[in-house]
Amino acid sequence: MTDTRDFDRETAVTRKPGEPSVYDTELHGSWKVGMGVNGGLLLSVAGRALAAELGAGPDGHPDPFAISAYYLSTSTPGPATVSVETLRRGRTVSTGAASLIQTDEDGVPVERLRAMATFGDLDDQTDDIRTSAKPPQLPPPEECVGTESAPAEFRAQSPLLSRVELRLDPATVGWAVGAPSGKGEIRGWFRLPEGREPDPLLLLLAADILPPVSFDLGIYGWAPTLELTVHVRAKPAPGWLRVVHSTRNFAGGYLEEDAEIWDSADRLVAQSRQLARVRLPE
Amino acid sequence: MTDTRDFDRETAVTRKPGEPSVYDTELHGSWKVGMGVNGGLLLSVAGRALAAELGAGPDGHPDPFAISAYYLSTSTPGPATVSVETLRRGRTVSTGAASLIQTDEDGVPVERLRAMATFGDLDDQTDDIRTSAKPPQLPPPEECVGTESAPAEFRAQSPLLSRVELRLDPATVGWAVGAPSGKGEIRGWFRLPEGREPDPLLLLLAADILPPVSFDLGIYGWAPTLELTVHVRAKPAPGWLRVVHSTRNFAGGYLEEDAEIWDSADRLVAQSRQLARVRLPE
Repeated sequence: MTDTRDFDRETAVTRKPGEPSVYDTELHGSWKVGMGVNGGLLLSVAGRALAAELGAGPDGHPDPFAISAYYLSTSTPGPATVSVETLRRGRTVSTGAASLIQTDEDGVPVERLRAMATFGDLDDQTDDIRTSAKPPQLPPPEECVGTESAPAEFRAQSPLLSRVELRLDPATVGWAVGAPSGKGEIRGWFRLPEGREPDPLLLLLAADILPPVSFDLGIYGWAPTLELTVHVRAKPAPGWLRVVHSTRNFAGGYLEEDAEIWDSADRLVAQSRQLARVRLPE
Repeated sequence: MTDTRDFDRETAVTRKPGEPSVYDTELHGSWKVGMGVNGGLLLSVAGRALAAELGAGPDGHPDPFAISAYYLSTSTPGPATVSVETLRRGRTVSTGAASLIQTDEDGVPVERLRAMATFGDLDDQTDDIRTSAKPPQLPPPEECVGTESAPAEFRAQSPLLSRVELRLDPATVGWAVGAPSGKGEIRGWFRLPEGREPDPLLLLLAADILPPVSFDLGIYGWAPTLELTVHVRAKPAPGWLRVVHSTRNFAGGYLEEDAEIWDSADRLVAQSRQLARVRLPE
């Protein structure tokens, strides 16, 4: 059987004829997790429309340096449009905003997310790297826990799990058997099963692909994202990515979730933070 | 001599007659640092306009939970307008966007920053606090280094320094005498000299009030902010705030700068992250 999974095709945007800066896209049901389409996938789609706009031309800025999304309503599989507004075109970086919109069953447009981003050219950055963060130590992927080990019921709710190769450090999956560490950290390997190598757009997906870090605190509820910001700091080398989710401030029914994404060359290629709401069991 | 400093007056916004959701404000020259008006002050102004819009009415959401700003051009002292767009009005939270605009010398409108934010009511949050982060240990304010110790030349470029009371941990000011620690951390006490107690709006200022953390890496250049996101997690208790700036990934001419803001009751009341460009000495 041919592997028909294709991240690029399923995040593609096409310019809407006659409407400048408006792009059509189709959200694929296989990227659903729980109620809606995965927030990182939506960020990749918005990022692609922003790249089409800000990256165009010889002086264009093709790579996201910083991108922030505010999630407004639950995205559903099906058609969507992304409208891009260029806010500033500069020499080193350019900034834009993007609005992802779907129509509800009555044909009324509903905004799913609004994003802002500053794009540049990662190849233009200096070679001076003084990262003091240390790469995470994980057992090799073959000794980690794959999504195929997830309970059938959970897999059924999360078709997304079959779209990605995700292998979690056994030291951070105690929550899956009712023994969360309480530390607020989940580590794992991530790549696409179709063999497509990582690039800046894939890092936007990777920033929100691990299970909610609240699971490691023993909170198993849905953790909807209010806001997610990703800083892409370098083009990732080919191969597996390592993603570390952590939180230090679970309070008042909300938590921050930080992600660090490391590539196969031990470079910290992206950092992200989100604010998520967590529902405590009654 | 009366203390005429007044954060509230100088971040005030007034509804523009006949233009719904547009606010007038006046950026005060005393909030300048280096070339332009301080980014945290601008975020407070944008936050105030968003609060006027999203916080209105009995079901309004008065407090910023998450706010992100993308800085587009250098703000100058003088009049400015803030246009607010309500993106979604929800039961628990509401989301909006704000655009801060000034006119240049030719009368052409120039956007200074675009912000997005989700507002809620901090008093509605649960009492369940499981913060694992530890409050920073600093010597008492009277044993820390005040801005009055900054070189006269630096103070002349940064009138902002006389608007705030900032007392830095001596362990993190080696850079001021040419001996940066290299750790990438600056800690300090912060309050307003006029005695006004902290609230969520002041936290937006506090997130960008310390010197750039790059100073502690021995990089003394200007570090303009591309993007700044603040999560306000609780209303601060009266008294001094403690602010910790840190970075882990100075690379390629950019760095992330994280801030944690702790109140006098040892509560982690805000977290922020920004992406800044750093210019290395030639």
